This record gives sequence, structure tokens and C-alpha cells, in this order.
Amino acid sequence: MQPNGYEVATPDRLDATFTALADPTRRAILARLASGEASVTELAEPFAMSQPAISKHLKVLERAGLISRGRDAQRRPSRLEAQPLGEATEWLESYRELWEANYQRLDAVLDELKIDEKKRKDSKRRRKSAMKRP
Amino acid sequence: MQPNGYEVATPDRLDATFTALADPTRRAILARLASGEASVTELAEPFAMSQPAISKHLKVLERAGLISRGRDAQRRPSRLEAQPLGEATEWLESYRELWEANYQRLDAVLDELKIDEKKRKDSKRRRKSAMKRP
Repeated sequence: MQPNGYEVATPDRLDATFTALADPTRRAILARLASGEASVTELAEPFAMSQPAISKHLKVLERAGLISRGRDAQRRPSRLEAQPLGEATEWLESYRELWEANYQRLDAVLDELKIDEKKRKDSKRRRKSAMKRP
Repeated sequence: MQPNGYEVATPDRLDATFTALADPTRRAILARLASGEASVTELAEPFAMSQPAISKHLKVLERAGLISRGRDAQRRPSRLEAQPLGEATEWLESYRELWEANYQRLDAVLDELKIDEKKRKDSKRRRKSAMKRP
């Protein structure tokens, strides 16, 4: 437990969060809701998807605690609840050192390739100017 | 595309990464591999799980690019490939402001509760000492 009263993600909650995020439509819905709440009709429009299909995705998101639904019976606007995203980020953060090390290795390889390419060009130029000499 | 040649996660790749992460055994396998490569036998041991069950999980992780398998035909050691975790973190990072704002609101509520609690105690103390006065 953290001392400041933040809820710590249980394995079940992380399962539900990652399952919810494993779909491009659901990720797009979250991206849309990041700029404000929206009704199912409003959400269905840009996706060229039926409202029942969107509703199914909203149920998965709601079960994962990633959205809440308003009480207005007509609109039932969906609202992003970002906390599970914070918990998922926290889990991933513990691997940051590892993937940053990967990126650094990749950078080193790219630098190496650039140096090789420069050397190749330099020696080609030297050969050309040697041939031009009388 | 980022200018430095890092691979940018395609939606499919993010789907595969989040699907792979949506299981507690697979997350535990990644945690184990973070400290070094391991064979299926070594991985199966702490999980009280059959080797075929572990192998199934490894296949999901391998398909997501989260592990690679060694060539040694006997051991085929699994090795963590952290880059997809970096891509998943990047996706989640764009929501950081939102969940940090949530945490700040929660902090504010907790502070409010603490102040209320202190006021309640102080007034109780004042009432008590008032009663004690002759």
C-alpha cells in the first residue's frame, strides 16, 4: 500500500485495464473522451459503427473502471475515468530502465552505422581525388 | 514517425502488447525475465503450472514481440524484449495529465478530510477543557 491513500491496482483490475486497452476502437473512444464526455450517438458517429457495437465497447470500458456513465436516462454520457490508466502506467514504469537501455543500444547501433557510412564516403572521395591527380 | 529511427507502434502491435499484458501469469513471467533469461522448466517452477501451460503463455508473449527465444534446441531460453513495453508506456503517457489531475483532486479531498478531522478534534478538546474549568 502506498502511504498517501491512492488505490493500488489489484491483478484483476490490471487484467481488466489491459484487456480494455487491447482494442483500437476502445483506445479511440478513450482518446475522444479525453476531450470531454459524450453520448453513445456522439461516440458512434466518427467510428462508422452501430450504436450497439459502441455500447458493447463502452461496457468493457465501464467494467474496467475506465469510464463512468451519466444518470441522464436519454443520453447516459460517458466520461473518462483516468485512474486505471495511471495504475497501468505505474506497472509499466518498472520496466522503463529496460526499454530505455534498448533504445540506447539502438542509438549506439545507428551512430555506428552513420560513422561507417561517413568513413565509406570519405574513402570513396579520397580515391576519386587521388585518381584525378595528374 | 520519430526522427531518430525508433519503431512506432502500429495499432496491431499495441493490441498484441495489451492483450499479452492482460494476464497475471504473463506479467509475472515478464517480471521474472527482467532479471535474466530462463528456460520453460525454470519458468514453470515458481508458477506451479505445467510446462505446456507456460509454453502457451510464452507463445502469446513471443507473438507480441515481448520475448524472444534462444536457438539452443534443448533449453530455448526466453529473453525479455522490452521495446513494446516502451511503446505501450508512450501511449499511456498522453493520459498522464488526466490521471495526475485525478490524483491531485483525491489529494485535495484527503487534505479537506484531514482538516475537518482536526477541527472536530480541536473543538472536542476545547469543549472538554471548558467543562473542566471550575
